[in-house]
Amino acid sequence: MIIVIQCKDQVGLVAAISGILAKEQLNIISMREHVDKVENRFYMRLEIEKHKDEATLEKKLKDVLPKDVTISINELPQKKVVILVTKEYHCLADILIRNYFETLGAKIQCVIGNHDTLQNICERFDVPFYLVSHEEISKETFEQMVAEKIDKYAPDYIVLAKFMRILSPQFVAKFPAKLINIHHSFLPAFAGANPYKQAFERGVKLIGATAHFVTDELDEGPIIAQQIIPVNHSLTASDMMKAGKEIETAVLAKALRFVFEDRVSVYKNKTVVFE
Amino acid sequence: MIIVIQCKDQVGLVAAISGILAKEQLNIISMREHVDKVENRFYMRLEIEKHKDEATLEKKLKDVLPKDVTISINELPQKKVVILVTKEYHCLADILIRNYFETLGAKIQCVIGNHDTLQNICERFDVPFYLVSHEEISKETFEQMVAEKIDKYAPDYIVLAKFMRILSPQFVAKFPAKLINIHHSFLPAFAGANPYKQAFERGVKLIGATAHFVTDELDEGPIIAQQIIPVNHSLTASDMMKAGKEIETAVLAKALRFVFEDRVSVYKNKTVVFE
Amino acid sequence: MIIVIQCKDQVGLVAAISGILAKEQLNIISMREHVDKVENRFYMRLEIEKHKDEATLEKKLKDVLPKDVTISINELPQKKVVILVTKEYHCLADILIRNYFETLGAKIQCVIGNHDTLQNICERFDVPFYLVSHEEISKETFEQMVAEKIDKYAPDYIVLAKFMRILSPQFVAKFPAKLINIHHSFLPAFAGANPYKQAFERGVKLIGATAHFVTDELDEGPIIAQQIIPVNHSLTASDMMKAGKEIETAVLAKALRFVFEDRVSVYKNKTVVFE
Amino acid sequence: MIIVIQCKDQVGLVAAISGILAKEQLNIISMREHVDKVENRFYMRLEIEKHKDEATLEKKLKDVLPKDVTISINELPQKKVVILVTKEYHCLADILIRNYFETLGAKIQCVIGNHDTLQNICERFDVPFYLVSHEEISKETFEQMVAEKIDKYAPDYIVLAKFMRILSPQFVAKFPAKLINIHHSFLPAFAGANPYKQAFERGVKLIGATAHFVTDELDEGPIIAQQIIPVNHSLTASDMMKAGKEIETAVLAKALRFVFEDRVSVYKNKTVVFE
Repeated sequence: MIIVIQCKDQVGLVAAISGILAKEQLNIISMREHVDKVENRFYMRLEIEKHKDEATLEKKLKDVLPKDVTISINELPQKKVVILVTKEYHCLADILIRNYFETLGAKIQCVIGNHDTLQNICERFDVPFYLVSHEEISKETFEQMVAEKIDKYAPDYIVLAKFMRILSPQFVAKFPAKLINIHHSFLPAFAGANPYKQAFERGVKLIGATAHFVTDELDEGPIIAQQIIPVNHSLTASDMMKAGKEIETAVLAKALRFVFEDRVSVYKNKTVVFE
Repeated sequence: MIIVIQCKDQVGLVAAISGILAKEQLNIISMREHVDKVENRFYMRLEIEKHKDEATLEKKLKDVLPKDVTISINELPQKKVVILVTKEYHCLADILIRNYFETLGAKIQCVIGNHDTLQNICERFDVPFYLVSHEEISKETFEQMVAEKIDKYAPDYIVLAKFMRILSPQFVAKFPAKLINIHHSFLPAFAGANPYKQAFERGVKLIGATAHFVTDELDEGPIIAQQIIPVNHSLTASDMMKAGKEIETAVLAKALRFVFEDRVSVYKNKTVVFE
Repeated sequence: MIIVIQCKDQVGLVAAISGILAKEQLNIISMREHVDKVENRFYMRLEIEKHKDEATLEKKLKDVLPKDVTISINELPQKKVVILVTKEYHCLADILIRNYFETLGAKIQCVIGNHDTLQNICERFDVPFYLVSHEEISKETFEQMVAEKIDKYAPDYIVLAKFMRILSPQFVAKFPAKLINIHHSFLPAFAGANPYKQAFERGVKLIGATAHFVTDELDEGPIIAQQIIPVNHSLTASDMMKAGKEIETAVLAKALRFVFEDRVSVYKNKTVVFE
Repeated sequence: MIIVIQCKDQVGLVAAISGILAKEQLNIISMREHVDKVENRFYMRLEIEKHKDEATLEKKLKDVLPKDVTISINELPQKKVVILVTKEYHCLADILIRNYFETLGAKIQCVIGNHDTLQNICERFDVPFYLVSHEEISKETFEQMVAEKIDKYAPDYIVLAKFMRILSPQFVAKFPAKLINIHHSFLPAFAGANPYKQAFERGVKLIGATAHFVTDELDEGPIIAQQIIPVNHSLTASDMMKAGKEIETAVLAKALRFVFEDRVSVYKNKTVVFE
């Protein structure tokens, strides 16, 4: 059982929490803790043996912790996920494979694409695919149609697996802390369009990818994971894009594992990730 | 103040420890904990605000913890270190620089070399250098002379910074958990002599270095840190050695930082490193 | 068009080769060259604009090069591949995805498994799967049945994508320089069985994977690619295995790309890889 | 002997160059070549056995190559270098050590600092240190004083080893393609002041460093080398700065090795680096 706690910091929090667990004779399998001195904020992730009565445990913890506390108690793995895609296959295929072999730590509910390019691969894995084209309709209508599809499945997270439409603040506001995006650069470098072309023209010696929660500001949300690979003069912009896809796939997979295993806490524009 | 605890695992250890800290109104700056399920062993590293009475605190902790517990309470940085060298400069020079600018987290007491090659660089930094040649004397006598020099300084750690003599079990037994070596391969690959030549002949695509505590078995002690760099067919054995020196220097520096900041616990032939 | 040349070294080889290309008005898109001074051996990989008459070009090159020369002239991508598997899906699934989206640089002819675990995933991608069980038959008979299946497809390469049977020298001899294996450790460390268990017990701080050509000696063939990831005390042997699968998948993908793009030359027990 | 060639691309360049080398019976130890298809530009680096008459060889090469060609023929190692510093020691100390042990591939002529913090370490290595304070004088006067010191030594390169003054275009123009800077971020992320503070506030999961040639545009010159290290929420801005220094030192050392071994060609705002 995973317990994730976030509240303002004060003396005695660890004693209070571990005291209750000890009284309940609950063995701590692993405990990770972080105090953000700048924000005066306390974070904890506990993995403990299963407790028969989660609600009572949560109440007991709340009684000894500051009023602003958020506590989540979860069994692994049971997250529900909706995937949004456009045309590129690499991230989606990796997620479909893990879903099929039950190593994703979540269950894909459906895939929504604004093109039908990836319909066939979804069908091969018996995952529902919905085409919602953005063409000939307003952005508002498009997003409303996508949101309706999503809402039907009430997912824990919505993964933008190379979804190439910029989402409006209205859409983002509907799914707070639920939208996870993979950006094809090591942010904040090369935010915006065509990062590989930008990287090629700047002559950088490494390219990367960033998985982050989506907020109102484009490419500005809390970063979950980042990774890079070395490149050199011999790569064209198109070679960089090809090489980048490998790293995009790897970073998104890593970020999703962190999120699905309840290792990520968000506060303001930053994450605490207990790897 | 750093508190490092190691004992057999049982329910309630975190509550017991954090309860005492809370009672003493000690704020936990950072806490890292690990339970080794295979060995049924509990490890903790705490960074807390300074306490006026360390002895009383240690006693209070001991009263609530299993009898086999080891507790160390330390201020940073105050380790005393003796360095053993032969002819290669790269690791020693890096340590001397950090020592000189007081970023080593320890204080070099002296350097002992079985050649005089590195005497001049030590003198430039006003660090005592002792030549103890291994020539024309027995290994026993040589080691006794080295041990006597070391004993004069009563160091916390002895760093073998490319010291190319194999130490006898008798010597090693004199300094348990105090001898730190840098081996020029990613152990257990290429243990023994000439690892770069071995690596070249095997045609590996990466070479590395390993910092480890020294035990009776050559190149077999608990590993503290390891790192690698990619290589390819264009490197000769001598190029590999040159490239390897960079990584040896980096890995030893990293391992020493971990050790000097009390981040490393040893049990049997393994380490727990709270990075 | 890719031209790969290997022969003993002598003065004037580059001039001889590039002289012919210039005479034929062939533009060199990229050229990589290596001289192994230890073995006195010359390697070259050329990417040039397509030539209408490959046979004549090869003859002209042979006329000016040492008698022991091997020259291969290839169009990309047209390699034929057979995959051997047991039960683990990660490497196979990655290859199937790339095959399906035509980014593998080769065409999978069929998959042969000694268990039927991975039959379903192959069928989902319309790739023929053959079950050849090793049970209740001799190793000789088993290998003969596998070899017959392979021979029907006359593949350029046979990829052991987590194929967990040790192949006899007789089998290996049938497919010289064609068998590519992924080993789940950074060889030569942890050769043989259960490398993750070995790594866990040794307490290493990094684990890796190695893609190599298969030769008579188990885990001893020419290495094509290697990669590692950092690990620490918090990982169990089973966590290491899980983490290792990611790196196995990545290393095998990288090695296959090198091989399928004619970037790998083999001589004795080593490779020259023009990345 | 190292020969570096750069010119516009055309068919037959390799044949022309290697033809001359063959005629002169010069053995090619290593040859690297790159064609930039976007800029239609040809780059080559040759390592050959020593030739008795460099001037004649250069003339012969020029006769067969395009008129815009630049050819440099160099013996290793003989570069002359001036170092500019402010207060931080890590990059300077690393360079001083390599200079002292003659593994830098260049000879430090002097160190110029706008503070006297690093005077003592230079004196310990018998390297001349000049204090040129920027206080109470105009930027123009300051730069003129620095330039005069530099000119006295006629260095091949000027290394800004954590020199914290922004140089004017006038100063930069005096030393075209000679000024090498280490910037404490993976450019183009976090250009300008306080990159570690920026990185901390953005919550990135990796920090890096960039070695580049200096041009008029601040932090915009051709990149020679870049590297990163992973970071996480547990690091303060000051921890990031500390960790960053290690990578700054390593990247600058790597970039200087490339430059001093004549592995770097510059064209417009990019480099070709034959590693």
